Amino acid sequence: MRETALVPIKLTQAIAATAGAFAVMGALLAAAPSASAAPDVSYFKLANGFEVVVVPDRRTPVVTHMVWYKVGAADEPPGKSGIAHFLEHLMFKGTAKNPAGRFSKAVAEIGGQENAFTSSDYTGYFQRTSREHLKTLMEFEADRMTGLQLTDDVVLPELNVVLEEQNQRVANNPGAKLGQQIEAALYLNHPYGKPVIGWRHEIEKLNREDALAFYKRFYTPNNAILVVAGDVAADEVKALAEATYGKVSQVTQLGPRIRPQEPEQIAPRQVTLADPRVEQPSVQRSYLVPSAATAKPGEAEALEVLAHILGGGTNSRLYRALVVDRDVALSAGGWYSSSALDATRFGVYGSPKPGTTLPQLEAAVDAVIEDVIAGGVNADELERTKSRLIAEAIYAQDNQSTLARWYGVALTTGSTVERVKSWPERIRAVNAETVNEAARTWLNKRRSVTGYLIKEETRPGEKRS
Amino acid sequence: MRETALVPIKLTQAIAATAGAFAVMGALLAAAPSASAAPDVSYFKLANGFEVVVVPDRRTPVVTHMVWYKVGAADEPPGKSGIAHFLEHLMFKGTAKNPAGRFSKAVAEIGGQENAFTSSDYTGYFQRTSREHLKTLMEFEADRMTGLQLTDDVVLPELNVVLEEQNQRVANNPGAKLGQQIEAALYLNHPYGKPVIGWRHEIEKLNREDALAFYKRFYTPNNAILVVAGDVAADEVKALAEATYGKVSQVTQLGPRIRPQEPEQIAPRQVTLADPRVEQPSVQRSYLVPSAATAKPGEAEALEVLAHILGGGTNSRLYRALVVDRDVALSAGGWYSSSALDATRFGVYGSPKPGTTLPQLEAAVDAVIEDVIAGGVNADELERTKSRLIAEAIYAQDNQSTLARWYGVALTTGSTVERVKSWPERIRAVNAETVNEAARTWLNKRRSVTGYLIKEETRPGEKRS
Repeated sequence: MRETALVPIKLTQAIAATAGAFAVMGALLAAAPSASAAPDVSYFKLANGFEVVVVPDRRTPVVTHMVWYKVGAADEPPGKSGIAHFLEHLMFKGTAKNPAGRFSKAVAEIGGQENAFTSSDYTGYFQRTSREHLKTLMEFEADRMTGLQLTDDVVLPELNVVLEEQNQRVANNPGAKLGQQIEAALYLNHPYGKPVIGWRHEIEKLNREDALAFYKRFYTPNNAILVVAGDVAADEVKALAEATYGKVSQVTQLGPRIRPQEPEQIAPRQVTLADPRVEQPSVQRSYLVPSAATAKPGEAEALEVLAHILGGGTNSRLYRALVVDRDVALSAGGWYSSSALDATRFGVYGSPKPGTTLPQLEAAVDAVIEDVIAGGVNADELERTKSRLIAEAIYAQDNQSTLARWYGVALTTGSTVERVKSWPERIRAVNAETVNEAARTWLNKRRSVTGYLIKEETRPGEKRS
Repeated sequence: MRETALVPIKLTQAIAATAGAFAVMGALLAAAPSASAAPDVSYFKLANGFEVVVVPDRRTPVVTHMVWYKVGAADEPPGKSGIAHFLEHLMFKGTAKNPAGRFSKAVAEIGGQENAFTSSDYTGYFQRTSREHLKTLMEFEADRMTGLQLTDDVVLPELNVVLEEQNQRVANNPGAKLGQQIEAALYLNHPYGKPVIGWRHEIEKLNREDALAFYKRFYTPNNAILVVAGDVAADEVKALAEATYGKVSQVTQLGPRIRPQEPEQIAPRQVTLADPRVEQPSVQRSYLVPSAATAKPGEAEALEVLAHILGGGTNSRLYRALVVDRDVALSAGGWYSSSALDATRFGVYGSPKPGTTLPQLEAAVDAVIEDVIAGGVNADELERTKSRLIAEAIYAQDNQSTLARWYGVALTTGSTVERVKSWPERIRAVNAETVNEAARTWLNKRRSVTGYLIKEETRPGEKRS
């Protein structure tokens, strides 16, 4: 089944949390289009509340078609963790009009690609085909928006698929397990502390009724956003969307997305995961910081720049200090996960060279952080970083699905088309004082969890640590 | 207002978590009546589902009257932490029949005492008067079971009372703050991780509607238990209860109390709270362990005995090793909090003598624990501990409200009158092998959070750590 290969985004982050994959992720999350280079993006809403974003990209006769629902793991009822992701899988199980497999088969037959993903804040469905099939995609996707039919004989086997996915991605991956533990320890009250894929003991109990209840509560045109990027004009997309999505009746009305918020964070936490399968130990720290949606003006942009100065690539402070100058680490870096409805994470990490202990490496990371807090950033690295971020965003537009993804993420995490467009200007406006203030305010250990990933030396079978 | 003095039980525990108050708490929680000495306890249910326990205690013409609701902080809706405790306060705000203050005034005028308390699993209301006033107490308590009336002009001032209580008990008490942080880090998914008094930012937003919604959902005779201890006969109590509580109509039907459970715990956690007001540093560790309601047969009793061997009083292993023999601690001990519907805590703690660091003290605590895991308990300490626990339970019956409390706690945390009665037999049946197995199975650091309480050396105003 194609959907077994689907990638829940936040989970990927958690897995990426082992060692050097961070830098790539940071850049990906950071990227956003340049206003000057930005295509003429359209935004409109249909009468039933369905939102549409059209991103012209005329280079090839291809379209990227994505439907985003404003619902993710952080919207799950207590005790039902994993239901958002499980439903994402079940969305491929067919409707009265299109039995299970027909949509995926149609995409495959026209040489298209498809994917789906779940995060804490959104769930999305993606296809990429040649331009003339856009209407077909819309018809299929509009049909399953409210027409999903589920029977136990498809639900139960799919639960095993999801459990096997959890097994592969998390249970057998010490780095991913540590990532889950860090998030659970970082969020004392907010549901971001739950894994997107769910806690295994809760996934095991999910059933058809849970999935349908969640579906009926959140899958409705007034809670969905279409993003079409590609070789199409806005009025063409509008006509097609009205003929398909526009015909879908609202299922329910949804209030504002209010989740339990974090208390004041006052005590640094540490988590150690020891596992015999760990080949490369590492230390990582997540700080609880404002997201683009919760930050005061300019603050998220300053955190973005700060993350890159501290930890973006081989010119960053952490990399230079730990890998190049002091030669104590194999890798080191930092990242900021700006796109979230509620308070989010700023991370630093490193993997020690043989001979360096994790506490020694942590102290070296701390020294770099203390230094930026005490001395601030310099004009040179600030300008270099801003230019690089803006340039990367321009290059990233070369990828049509990245382009579409920016708008989908933005509109499901409290941002707007306008803010995506103004991102380069906002980065350009960042100055040393705002970066230094962000460092002083948010790189506060009391708001953090430090995770150690270590090789378990205990003999197999001896479980105690 | 009298209710400003009311003591939420779990909060008291959290506060007690600083240093030596543990031993007292452990003994209190551990205590349960001896079958041989147990009074002839009656249990019956009225037609409306209201449960009644009568505990004869004829020594003085006094009665203890307690109504317990099977609802506590762990039953609160997400984002509304503190509502169970806030409602406990608001229960003193009057009904159509008995305006605010009349009940408390009546109790005071007849020379009685009253109290109320909230925990994660239950909420209780308590009065103690001379025996002839029992019916009056019942009339008042039955009246407010479903007749509470709330207006904003009483709710809003009471919210300030609760916030001030949070201020005094937690915000200005570093030990209590650390206790909250440890619980939040120990429970990755279960609502026991929330403070009973609530997170301050959520308490601040509680209002009349929240309180009434919670009241109407949980305050109904079929969710309540009356415990009367004192100079009364069961049939006398039954007649009075039928004439008062028996007339209260059911408000709602409640299903089983199912809360989100914990995932497998795999990573030891550590939390550090630094505060300038800390005069005496301490280290403490909580392990996630089965409660009396979730343990397999004999396991909770073994944990009880283990807690006392390890940390109950000055003859315990921790006290002898750390305070007496090695002279590194001012205090040391352990405890087990058996009464809970879901997985509960087993704790160890110590306060260092000047010259001993917290990591050194923690290592010394670990050595004591490793020793009991590796070598098991000896016959002598086992018999001594069991005898002491059983004797303490007999002595504790001297206190009428303790006696009443045992039954209230039991019946709101998944236990029964029969199990309270059989407690001494069950303790007597504990053998070395079950204690050793409990130690090997449950004193596993991966299931634990270690908390450090330290004096903050940073200058005032400099908040970063």
